[in-house]
Amino acid sequence: MPAKNGKQFIDRIDLAKPSVWFRGEEVGGRLSEHPAFRGLMSTQAELYDMQNHPDFKDRMTYPSPTTGDPVGLSFLQPKTKEDLAKRREMMMLWGEKHHGLLGRSPDYMNTGLMAFYSAADLLGEKDPRFADNMRKYYEYCREHDISLSHAFVQPHASRFDELLEDGSIESCAARVVEQNKDGIVVTGAFLLATQGVTTDEILVYPPASAYLPEENNPRTFAFAVPNNLPGIRWICRENLALGDSEYDYPLSSRFDEMDTLVLFDHVLVPWDRVFILGDDRLSMRLFAESNYHVHSAHQVICRYIAKTEFTLGVILYIMESLDRSSHPAAIEKVTEVIAQLETLKSLLIAAEAGAAPDRFGSMIPDRRPLWTANLIFPKVYPRMMEIIQLLGSSAVIMIPSKLDFESAVKPELDKYLRGGGVDAFAKTALFRLAWDLSISGFGGRQTLYERFFFGDTSVVVSRLFHSYTDKETYIGKVKTFLGEQQA
Amino acid sequence: MPAKNGKQFIDRIDLAKPSVWFRGEEVGGRLSEHPAFRGLMSTQAELYDMQNHPDFKDRMTYPSPTTGDPVGLSFLQPKTKEDLAKRREMMMLWGEKHHGLLGRSPDYMNTGLMAFYSAADLLGEKDPRFADNMRKYYEYCREHDISLSHAFVQPHASRFDELLEDGSIESCAARVVEQNKDGIVVTGAFLLATQGVTTDEILVYPPASAYLPEENNPRTFAFAVPNNLPGIRWICRENLALGDSEYDYPLSSRFDEMDTLVLFDHVLVPWDRVFILGDDRLSMRLFAESNYHVHSAHQVICRYIAKTEFTLGVILYIMESLDRSSHPAAIEKVTEVIAQLETLKSLLIAAEAGAAPDRFGSMIPDRRPLWTANLIFPKVYPRMMEIIQLLGSSAVIMIPSKLDFESAVKPELDKYLRGGGVDAFAKTALFRLAWDLSISGFGGRQTLYERFFFGDTSVVVSRLFHSYTDKETYIGKVKTFLGEQQA
Amino acid sequence: MPAKNGKQFIDRIDLAKPSVWFRGEEVGGRLSEHPAFRGLMSTQAELYDMQNHPDFKDRMTYPSPTTGDPVGLSFLQPKTKEDLAKRREMMMLWGEKHHGLLGRSPDYMNTGLMAFYSAADLLGEKDPRFADNMRKYYEYCREHDISLSHAFVQPHASRFDELLEDGSIESCAARVVEQNKDGIVVTGAFLLATQGVTTDEILVYPPASAYLPEENNPRTFAFAVPNNLPGIRWICRENLALGDSEYDYPLSSRFDEMDTLVLFDHVLVPWDRVFILGDDRLSMRLFAESNYHVHSAHQVICRYIAKTEFTLGVILYIMESLDRSSHPAAIEKVTEVIAQLETLKSLLIAAEAGAAPDRFGSMIPDRRPLWTANLIFPKVYPRMMEIIQLLGSSAVIMIPSKLDFESAVKPELDKYLRGGGVDAFAKTALFRLAWDLSISGFGGRQTLYERFFFGDTSVVVSRLFHSYTDKETYIGKVKTFLGEQQA
Amino acid sequence: MPAKNGKQFIDRIDLAKPSVWFRGEEVGGRLSEHPAFRGLMSTQAELYDMQNHPDFKDRMTYPSPTTGDPVGLSFLQPKTKEDLAKRREMMMLWGEKHHGLLGRSPDYMNTGLMAFYSAADLLGEKDPRFADNMRKYYEYCREHDISLSHAFVQPHASRFDELLEDGSIESCAARVVEQNKDGIVVTGAFLLATQGVTTDEILVYPPASAYLPEENNPRTFAFAVPNNLPGIRWICRENLALGDSEYDYPLSSRFDEMDTLVLFDHVLVPWDRVFILGDDRLSMRLFAESNYHVHSAHQVICRYIAKTEFTLGVILYIMESLDRSSHPAAIEKVTEVIAQLETLKSLLIAAEAGAAPDRFGSMIPDRRPLWTANLIFPKVYPRMMEIIQLLGSSAVIMIPSKLDFESAVKPELDKYLRGGGVDAFAKTALFRLAWDLSISGFGGRQTLYERFFFGDTSVVVSRLFHSYTDKETYIGKVKTFLGEQQA
Repeated sequence: MPAKNGKQFIDRIDLAKPSVWFRGEEVGGRLSEHPAFRGLMSTQAELYDMQNHPDFKDRMTYPSPTTGDPVGLSFLQPKTKEDLAKRREMMMLWGEKHHGLLGRSPDYMNTGLMAFYSAADLLGEKDPRFADNMRKYYEYCREHDISLSHAFVQPHASRFDELLEDGSIESCAARVVEQNKDGIVVTGAFLLATQGVTTDEILVYPPASAYLPEENNPRTFAFAVPNNLPGIRWICRENLALGDSEYDYPLSSRFDEMDTLVLFDHVLVPWDRVFILGDDRLSMRLFAESNYHVHSAHQVICRYIAKTEFTLGVILYIMESLDRSSHPAAIEKVTEVIAQLETLKSLLIAAEAGAAPDRFGSMIPDRRPLWTANLIFPKVYPRMMEIIQLLGSSAVIMIPSKLDFESAVKPELDKYLRGGGVDAFAKTALFRLAWDLSISGFGGRQTLYERFFFGDTSVVVSRLFHSYTDKETYIGKVKTFLGEQQA
Repeated sequence: MPAKNGKQFIDRIDLAKPSVWFRGEEVGGRLSEHPAFRGLMSTQAELYDMQNHPDFKDRMTYPSPTTGDPVGLSFLQPKTKEDLAKRREMMMLWGEKHHGLLGRSPDYMNTGLMAFYSAADLLGEKDPRFADNMRKYYEYCREHDISLSHAFVQPHASRFDELLEDGSIESCAARVVEQNKDGIVVTGAFLLATQGVTTDEILVYPPASAYLPEENNPRTFAFAVPNNLPGIRWICRENLALGDSEYDYPLSSRFDEMDTLVLFDHVLVPWDRVFILGDDRLSMRLFAESNYHVHSAHQVICRYIAKTEFTLGVILYIMESLDRSSHPAAIEKVTEVIAQLETLKSLLIAAEAGAAPDRFGSMIPDRRPLWTANLIFPKVYPRMMEIIQLLGSSAVIMIPSKLDFESAVKPELDKYLRGGGVDAFAKTALFRLAWDLSISGFGGRQTLYERFFFGDTSVVVSRLFHSYTDKETYIGKVKTFLGEQQA
Repeated sequence: MPAKNGKQFIDRIDLAKPSVWFRGEEVGGRLSEHPAFRGLMSTQAELYDMQNHPDFKDRMTYPSPTTGDPVGLSFLQPKTKEDLAKRREMMMLWGEKHHGLLGRSPDYMNTGLMAFYSAADLLGEKDPRFADNMRKYYEYCREHDISLSHAFVQPHASRFDELLEDGSIESCAARVVEQNKDGIVVTGAFLLATQGVTTDEILVYPPASAYLPEENNPRTFAFAVPNNLPGIRWICRENLALGDSEYDYPLSSRFDEMDTLVLFDHVLVPWDRVFILGDDRLSMRLFAESNYHVHSAHQVICRYIAKTEFTLGVILYIMESLDRSSHPAAIEKVTEVIAQLETLKSLLIAAEAGAAPDRFGSMIPDRRPLWTANLIFPKVYPRMMEIIQLLGSSAVIMIPSKLDFESAVKPELDKYLRGGGVDAFAKTALFRLAWDLSISGFGGRQTLYERFFFGDTSVVVSRLFHSYTDKETYIGKVKTFLGEQQA
Repeated sequence: MPAKNGKQFIDRIDLAKPSVWFRGEEVGGRLSEHPAFRGLMSTQAELYDMQNHPDFKDRMTYPSPTTGDPVGLSFLQPKTKEDLAKRREMMMLWGEKHHGLLGRSPDYMNTGLMAFYSAADLLGEKDPRFADNMRKYYEYCREHDISLSHAFVQPHASRFDELLEDGSIESCAARVVEQNKDGIVVTGAFLLATQGVTTDEILVYPPASAYLPEENNPRTFAFAVPNNLPGIRWICRENLALGDSEYDYPLSSRFDEMDTLVLFDHVLVPWDRVFILGDDRLSMRLFAESNYHVHSAHQVICRYIAKTEFTLGVILYIMESLDRSSHPAAIEKVTEVIAQLETLKSLLIAAEAGAAPDRFGSMIPDRRPLWTANLIFPKVYPRMMEIIQLLGSSAVIMIPSKLDFESAVKPELDKYLRGGGVDAFAKTALFRLAWDLSISGFGGRQTLYERFFFGDTSVVVSRLFHSYTDKETYIGKVKTFLGEQQA
C-alpha cells in the first residue's frame, strides 16, 4: 500500500488489536470506536486523507523509487535544498491542518526513520546485517505507509537497584534478557510512548551511556516492532476530554494524543528488526551522525509555526470579540506573539538558506537556527497560553455548553454573552476553544508537552551550545580588538 | 441557628431549590447528591463541622452579642489587635483544611459583609433605613450562619447599546427597572458568581461609575437576596472533574467551586434588603471607607499562605520521590517557593503589627503589605505551578488510575513506577495530586482564578499605588539629599 | 570629494568650527585634538579609511551615477535583492569594525537620507521644489560624503505653555518663526543629537502631529543644514571616559559618541535645504511611504549582530579565562546569547529573502522580521550585559590599570591575577573591556541607548503590530477551524 | 576613645599610612586629602559625627560595660528583642544618612565582629587562648571604635598549581608560611577588600574547605590586623567619579567605596590577633554557630530598605518632574518598587517578631525572612535601576553640568530643560542623581555589588533552602491530605 488514506489507516489499527489497558481493563473491539481514541483517530484519518486528495496529493507524496507509486513525502531523504523545501511544504500542510496540536503527526516519526536510514552505512560498521535491516525496514515503512511511535524514556525506577532473594542485584531497567536464533528477547518498560496504540509499529531506542560506554551493554539496543507482538502491553492514561461535543471540547475531543506506558515482557524481537545491539558508542554516533535531531527539528519548527499562527488567530479574535483591538496593553501582549511568530519563521528560513550536505548525501538544514527554536519554544508556548488567559480573563471560564444554547435559557445567553461583532454562540465557541487550548486538562498537557518536547532544558541548551564549534572565532574578534587597542 | 455544622449547611441548601441550570437542564432533586456539586458540598460541610468540633470550636466561634450562642468568628468586627489575631487564627484553620483551594471559603464573604456592617453609618447619610437594613442583615447572617456568594461583574455585552424596534436604545446592563412599595425590581445578569448555588444568599453590588457619578443611577445598587427568589436563574459551567475517584482526582472531585452566570429577570428585592440605591458616590465611598478591600485582603493572605505551604509540600515531596532533593537546579526552584512563602508570611505579620483603628472603631491592618500580597500572588501562583511541571516533567502525565492499580497490570505498575522511598501507588497518588493542581482543567481554572482574584492587574496596581499617600516623604528624602549636595 | 578617507573626515570637521559648548565653555581649536572628541573622531576616521583601503574599497563603494567616482555604498538606493546584499555586506564590514558600538556609524544616516531621496516624488505633491531640494541634497551628500547627524526630539519643556508679560501664550517648542525670501527662520531646541558636532551637517525633522494634522503648522518642517550655521549652538554632555589609556578604557576612550542638546536661535535655513514645511500629513507620509524605518532597520540589525557577536566573544573569553567553559550554569547563560545571535541573524536573512519592491522602485526588505529585531534587542542587550556581570562577578571590578602593571607591584599582579590559559595582563585587558562594556559610565549609556534606539517600547510595539495588515488571515484560520468543528 | 567623631576617624586614618597603591604609585600624604578618597572619607566622617550629635547620640550609642562611656550600638550583643530594636533603629539612622549606598557603613563590620565575639566560647574548644583573643579584640574595637574591613575571597589564580624550578608544586593561595614565637606569618592575596584603606584594621578569614576538612590546614585561619602592618600592600582600582563637583556627581564624588586587592607578603600576625588556625571544621562552625550571617543580614536589610526608599523617592520625583504621575505604565513600574519596599519592610518586621535566643544568649532574628531578603534584593536592585532608565529615558543622559549652568548658555538651559513644577537647575540635579545611581560607572559598580553582596546566587539559595529544617512538616501536610483522600 503506497501513501494510505484515512480509512486504510483506521482499518489497519482496528485489525491489529494490541493489548491496550485503559482504566484497569483491557480494551476489546475496534479502537476507532472507543471513546478514548475515536476522536484522535478520526483526526489522524483526515491527515492521511489529504495524501490522496487532489488538492494536496502532489505536494504530499512523491513517486516511490521502488514502485513509482506515490509515497509520503516525509519519507524522502532530502538531497537538495529543493527537497528540503518540498518536505517543508508538506509538513506545513499537515501542520496547518492540525494546527500544531499533534506532536505525533505522521511526518514526525517518518522523518526520524528517514534520518536513521540515510546513515544506515554507519550501522554496518558493527555488522552489515544491521545496516541492511535498517534499509529494509525504512523501505517497508515507506511502501506501506506505516504509522510509527517511539519509546526511549526508562522509568525513574530503573535507576534503583533491587536486591533479589537469591542475593543477586537487579534493576528494572529495560534490557536484552536473551538472544536466540530468532532474535533478541527484551524485558522492561518505557514511559510516555505518545500515540503508542494508534500507530502500527514502535521504534525503541533507549539512550546509550555516555559515561562508561560498553560494547555489549544489554541495555543498549534499537529495534522496531509491530504494536501487537506477544508480550507487549500498553497502559494508557485517562482521556482528557470532558465530553464528546466538538462545540464544547473543540480540541480535547479530537486531538488528545494518548500517552502510554509500554511494557515489554520477554518480547521476541526478530533479528531483521534489530538495528543496534550492545554498542553504546555506535548508538550515540547514530544519533549524531544521522543528524537525527536536525531532521526532526526541521519538522518540529513547522509544527511550532502552525501552532503559533493558530494561537495568534485565537488571540486576535479574542481581542476583536472583546473590543480590545486598540487597547495598548492588549496590543503589547499580542505583539509579543507576533514577534515570536516572526522569529520562528525567520529561523526556519535561515535554516534552509544555510543548509549543506552531509557525508551521506543528505541536505542538512543549518542546525543552529533550528535548535534555537527548540530552546525558545518551551518558554514561548507557556507565555502565549498565559496571554490568552490574561486577555480572556473570566470570559474564558464562564462558557456555557452547546446544550445550554439548545435549552430554555438560550435567549438570555444570546443577550448577555454576545461579543463585538459576533453573536453569543460564536463567541462562546471561540472562548471554549481558548479554554481548551490554555486552561483545560488537554491544554495543560499540551503546555507540559511543549516544555519538554525536545528534551529537558539542560539537554536542549547543551545541544545548541555544542553546535557552536567555532567559538574561537568569536573569542578571536575580542583578542584582535584588544590587540589593536594595545598596539 | 448559631454557628452551623455540615449537615445543617447541606440540608438548608438542599431545601432551597434555586433554579439551577446545568448542561441545558434545570437541576432537580438534592443538590448535595448531584455529581457536579456533591464533592464540593461535602468539602464545605467539613469546614462547617470544624466550627462545632471540640478541637476547634473555641478558636472558630465567639459568643453572639445578641444571644451568647457561639457564632462564626469571621463575623467578628475586629476592635483590637487581639481580635485581628483571633480572626487570623480562625482563617488559618479553615485555610489549612482546604489548603487555600476554596476562594469562597465561608470566611471570605462573612468578612466582606462585616466590613460593610462596620461602616453602616455611612449608608445612613442617604437614608437611615439603608444603614438599618445593613445592620439587620449582618445580624441575620451572623445569627443564622448564612452562606453567601456575591456578584458584581456585568457581562461584556452590557457595554453595547441596542436599538429596539420602537426606536429606543437599550443596553442589557443590569438595572432597577421599577420601584414599588415592596421593593426594587431588578433585571440583568452577572458573570461568575462563584459558588452561587452552593450558598444560601447572594450579595449583589455592581461597581458605580467613577466618571459621571449620578445620584439616581438605575445601574447602581447593593442588595442581598436568597438564591431561590422568583426570577433568579443560575447557569453553571461544566464540572471540571474527569471522575469521582478521590484517588484519581484528589482536587477536582472535591474542590471545584462552581462558577455561575446569574440571571435576574424582574426580581423583586424587598426594601429591607436594599443597602444602596442610585447613589454612585455613596457606593464608591462604601467600599473605600468600610475598608472592604483591607478586611478582605486579610482573609485572602491567609488563604495564599495555606496554598503556598501546600504547594511547597507537593514540590518537596516530588523532589524526594524523584531523588532530587540535593539537585542544584531543583533546589533553586523550590527555594523560590520558600522565598515567596516567607514573603507572604512576613507581609501578614507586618500588616497586623501596623494595624490602626478607623473612625468606625474597627482595627484595620496595614493595607500596604496586604495589597502587596494581592499584587504579587497572581504572578507567584502561576510560577509555582510552572515549577511543579518543570520538576515533575513527564511523571506528572503518565499517571495510572486507581482502577489500573486494581487490575492485572498492578505488578508491573508496582515495579516500574515506584519512587525514592515511596511505593508506586503512593507515588502515583502524589503525582495525580500534582497533576490536578497544576495541569488538569481544575488546576487551569485555579491558575486563572488567582490571576484575577482581587481584580485586573491595573486595579490591583492602582490600589497599592494610591495607598502610598505619603509620596512626598520619599521625594523629600531626595530633595534634602540634593539640597545638601548643593549647599 | 567622493568616498572620503579618515584624514579628509577630520580636516573638514576641524575646519567647520561650529559653536560647541563643553562644561560651560565654548570649545576652540581643532575638535580632533580635544580630549572629549579625539578618541571618537579617530575611530570614525578609521571607518572612513576603510572606504579607500584596497581590502574593502570594492565592497564599500560603488561608482557615482554622476561622476563614476567611487561613492559610499550606504547611499545606494537598492533596486534588487543583490543591492540589498551589497548594502548589508558593507554595513557588516563597518559594524564588525566598530563592533556595533557606534549608533551613528556613517551608514546609519546615509541610509535614512537615501530613504527620503527615494521617495522624493512625494514631497513634490506640495511643491515641486521640495522634491528637487531633496534630490539635490542627497546628491550633494553622496558626492561629498557628507557626515550627518539628525535631531527630532523636542525637550519635555516644549509641552508646557508659558504666559508672557504681554498676555500672550507661548511654548518653547521649536518652530518656524519667520519666512523670508532667503529661507525659513527656526528657533527651538532638540535633545540628543548624537554625534552632532563630529559630523558635517544635521537633518532636522520633528515628528508631525497625528491628532489634529494641520497644513501650515509652524512646528512641522524638515530641513538639513551645516553644523556651523549662525545661531546654532551645541551643548555637550560630559565625556564618559575616565582616562585616555586604551588599555584601561578600551571602549570609552574611543567610542563615546557625544550626545548634544542643539539650540537654534533664529537660524536661517536656506530655501534649497527645506524639504517639508507646515504639512503634518505629508510629514507623516514621508516616513511611512519612504520606508524610512525599514531601510534604517536593515542597517540597525547589522549593527545588532556585530554587537552581539562581540559580546558573545567577550563572554566566551571570560568563561575560558575563569575555567568555566564546561560549567552548566555558565553554559546556560552563554547559550541564551547564542540563541539571540541566531535569532538576529535569521531575522536578517528572512528580511532579505522576503524583500519586495515599493512603488518608488526600491527593493524593501520584509519589515516584519526587522521590526521584530527592534522589539527584542532593547531587552536582549541589557540581559547580555547582565550575563557579563553574573559570569564575571568581582573579577570585573578588581581590575588594575596599565600603570599598575608598569609599577613595583607588577610581580604580584602577574602572580595573583592570571587566568586560565591567559596571563594577568591579558586577562585584565579582557576584564577591563568587560567592565567598559557592561558597568562603566560608557557601558551604562550604551545600555540606555539600546533600550530606546528605535523609539519608546510603545512606539516599537505599535510599529510591528500595525505591520501585520493581514490579521484577518489568522482570525480566519480560527473561524474555519470552529466552522469545521460545528459542521 | 569611645564612640568617635568624624575628625577622630579621619585623623587616625591619616596617621596610619598604610602602603596604598593607586594607578601605579604609592600614595603619600594624608589619605583624606587624596582625590580618590577624600569624598568617601568625608561621608564616613559625617556618619561618625552622628554618634556624638545630640540628636542621635542616645540612639546610636550605649554605655560601655567596661567604662560606662558611650560606645557604638552596633557593637552591642543583642540579648532581648528590645536590643534588636535598638540595633535596628541605629542601623536605620546610618542607613538613612547614606541611603544604603555604603556597603561598608561601620555597623556592617561591627556587627560581624560582635557575632564572632558572642560565640567566642566555641573558639576555646581548640585552644582557650583563641577565645580569649577574640574577646579582647572585640573589646578593643568597641572601646576604640575601630573601623574595620574584611577580606576572604582568594584570587581565582589560587586554584592553579604551579610547577617550581626545583620540581615542587606550589599554589599562590594565601597561607600560613611560618609560625614562630611572635605569631603566624602569612603570604597571599585577597580580592576586593572594600574600603580596605579607609578603615583602621582588617579581619581576614578565608573560607575553610568543606570537602576534605583538615585540622592543620595552612590555608585556614582567621585573624585581624592593622592596615599598616609591614608586608601589607593595598592595590586600589581607579576612582569611579568623573569629577569632584557634588552637583555633577552627587554619588560618585562622595560614596565610592574603594575596592582593593590586598597583598600579604610574609606578614607577621601577632598571636593575640589569631582566632582560628588550621582547623577547617571549627572555622565552618564559627560562621554557622555564631549566627554571623543572621546578625549581618539584620544590618543588611536595614541598608536595603534605606536604599529602596531613596530609589523610590528618585523615581517618584522623576515621574513628577516629567508630569507622568498619573501615567498607567509609569504607575505600574513605580508600584513594583513600592511592592518591593513593602516586602523588605515586612521581612524585617517578621524577622524581629520571630527572634529567639541562641545558646550563647544572643537574641537571634528569624533567619528565614532575612535570608529571603538576601535572595531577592540582587534581582530587585537591578530591576529598580532598569525602571529609572525606562522612566527617565533620554533625560537621564542629556544632563548639562554645573559649569554649563554658570555659562552663557544658562538662559537656554533654563528655558528648555525645566520640568513639571521644577526649574531646569533642580531638574538637572535630579537627573544627574538618577544617572549617577543607575548609569554611571559608580552606578554600575553598585549594581554589580548588590548582585553578589551576600555571595553568589547558589550560596544564597543554599543558605535559605537549608534554613528550612522542617521540610517534613510541609510534606506531612500533603501526606495527610492524600491519606484522607484515600481513606
